[in-house]
Amino acid sequence: MFKVKVYVTLKKSVLDPQGVAVKDSLNSMDYSEIEDVRIGKYMEVMVNPKERSVETVVNEICDKLLANPVMENYWYEIEEVEEA
Amino acid sequence: MFKVKVYVTLKKSVLDPQGVAVKDSLNSMDYSEIEDVRIGKYMEVMVNPKERSVETVVNEICDKLLANPVMENYWYEIEEVEEA
Repeated sequence: MFKVKVYVTLKKSVLDPQGVAVKDSLNSMDYSEIEDVRIGKYMEVMVNPKERSVETVVNEICDKLLANPVMENYWYEIEEVEEA
Repeated sequence: MFKVKVYVTLKKSVLDPQGVAVKDSLNSMDYSEIEDVRIGKYMEVMVNPKERSVETVVNEICDKLLANPVMENYWYEIEEVEEA
């Protein structure tokens, strides 16, 4: 069994209104130290590979479902874990 | 300037309906290898500290705004970056 940590972020050129809202909230809460916030996703996916490799499966599910390749970047880390 | 990578996940005991929906979608898309999906947040926060330390600011904003300590765990990594 593999635990795959998938990170998805908006591309730099894409406006992140949710991040802007959080930054503005923090600034108004007296945290003027905060200069920028960008919000993405962090997913933990448990994969039990059969015919296909973990990398093949993860690349495919990221491209097809977990990320939008037009607007988002993704990367991941794979770690082997013991069966639950 | 510091770039802080903040990770927020639902606690293990909390049901993650969004993760269940993604897992079910992947299984129905012929990815039977996927046994579990948990979805969290990944945030990149740029902090320019003044009187308070970066750690103090980040702990406070996580507890007050970025995470819900009742249902979520958070952790973060701090890296120093050059001024933009």
